[in-house]
Amino acid sequence: MAFARLGEVGGEIPVFQQDDQSYDLRSLTDDIDGAFLAGEGIAKTRAAFAAGTLPILDGAASLRIGAPIAQPTKIVCIGLNYRDHAEETKAQAPVEPILFMKDPSTIVGPFDTVYVPRKSMKTDWEVELGVVIGKTARYLESEADVDDVIAGYVLAHDVSEREFQIERGTQWDKGKSCETFNPLGPILVPADEVADPQALGLRLWVNGELKQDGTTANMIFGIRHVIWYLSQFMVLRPGDLINTGTPAGVALGQPEPKPYLRGGDVVELEIDGLGRARQELVQA
Amino acid sequence: MAFARLGEVGGEIPVFQQDDQSYDLRSLTDDIDGAFLAGEGIAKTRAAFAAGTLPILDGAASLRIGAPIAQPTKIVCIGLNYRDHAEETKAQAPVEPILFMKDPSTIVGPFDTVYVPRKSMKTDWEVELGVVIGKTARYLESEADVDDVIAGYVLAHDVSEREFQIERGTQWDKGKSCETFNPLGPILVPADEVADPQALGLRLWVNGELKQDGTTANMIFGIRHVIWYLSQFMVLRPGDLINTGTPAGVALGQPEPKPYLRGGDVVELEIDGLGRARQELVQA
Repeated sequence: MAFARLGEVGGEIPVFQQDDQSYDLRSLTDDIDGAFLAGEGIAKTRAAFAAGTLPILDGAASLRIGAPIAQPTKIVCIGLNYRDHAEETKAQAPVEPILFMKDPSTIVGPFDTVYVPRKSMKTDWEVELGVVIGKTARYLESEADVDDVIAGYVLAHDVSEREFQIERGTQWDKGKSCETFNPLGPILVPADEVADPQALGLRLWVNGELKQDGTTANMIFGIRHVIWYLSQFMVLRPGDLINTGTPAGVALGQPEPKPYLRGGDVVELEIDGLGRARQELVQA
Repeated sequence: MAFARLGEVGGEIPVFQQDDQSYDLRSLTDDIDGAFLAGEGIAKTRAAFAAGTLPILDGAASLRIGAPIAQPTKIVCIGLNYRDHAEETKAQAPVEPILFMKDPSTIVGPFDTVYVPRKSMKTDWEVELGVVIGKTARYLESEADVDDVIAGYVLAHDVSEREFQIERGTQWDKGKSCETFNPLGPILVPADEVADPQALGLRLWVNGELKQDGTTANMIFGIRHVIWYLSQFMVLRPGDLINTGTPAGVALGQPEPKPYLRGGDVVELEIDGLGRARQELVQA
């Protein structure tokens, strides 16, 4: 089972998907957002589905697929969190999680256009496992408390402009928050339906060529540690998105001339059990 | 004239303030947010006030003063943007604006409690001029286009934990997004009521002792340049908050032992024409 949001930008309909059918959730909620997740929305959806009270959404297959969650309060990203990616970028593996942020309005649907920013020469790809927060997390006492605050998992694309990120000052946010730089989805899978989030394959192709082929088993800091750690520095809110880092294979890690993205390129990406996405690059 | 939000957390009433009276804006808008600002809310308020259709809010003086804007999509901050502050922190003056982000849920009212984070030894103060965006800004062509997208100005406190920011990795966001770390207000003053935003005095006291006494005339990158610059890297949305940097006088710039904030300390701050705020520190 999974959650999705279908329809035009700003008018997405929340749905529950099971056995290739989409069930309309509008009798339960206006959106797949923090209030829905914190209010036991996943359990209520399962109960409503079991009771047979959720209507099938007619014509769902013809609708645009939006990001599977509403715009969050924040997006927090973990940098250099796969040993092979740290090595390819010639960075030292971090001794504790590196965190940075993305503008939450960079989220777009999994098949939406991604813009190459004006004056960008180094737009890069990063397939990532996204964690969606389901309950407020503040100074969690231990990693054992983390499972209770994770609503689910999602396929995320942490698009990155390397010149803006690395060569235009010391702070990475500048290259991480360009328009459309966080395609998300297609689906949100509840945490209890993912058997082992630390054993998921992640793959990304550019113009059909496999570029990233990793596994979440290779994270330096696992999901429980990352969420526990973040909660020591900030309050995680229901609906917040945590991008947990990318495995090796990004353009930055390739020999010169590095194959950065250009208008017309097509990126496809997937994570085991979290679906597949496809974005065409367009010059802004 | 100014805008404010009065009442308990989450239930603030939008008001328009003139001659020590607060006028209830709920007939015009639910909140002082991006939609209100982008929808010519300031002009509509002036027209309604001139027409005498705004009722006085009874008992306004006894209400809590909230942040004067609703939680924005994002908070973008400019680092090391006063030459004297760059010098005191032994940092080189930047050659172009340094930007980083704060969790938008760190915003609290101007007289609310500020928490010293657990395990914090280096909680620091920063008085800043906040710019509130009024229209979507995307690849502005020149600094001449900036005035049209600024809704107004606000007094901001960019509370910062220096160990988290500087000693726990390279990315500053970690020390900028702790709970309650962005007190804001008391008022939002429309841009056209601020004669010269580059000639405003900023002052901050800790336990009654003057610590920062600067002027926005000393910004390295002026407001127009900062907003134009940001719009080349991200889309600025109505209601977004831009904290434009702090002048000299922070704890980080003092001789050892540096006088970082502790529970029980009181910070007061003000900017010419934008009001005064007072926050008590409490150990989280």
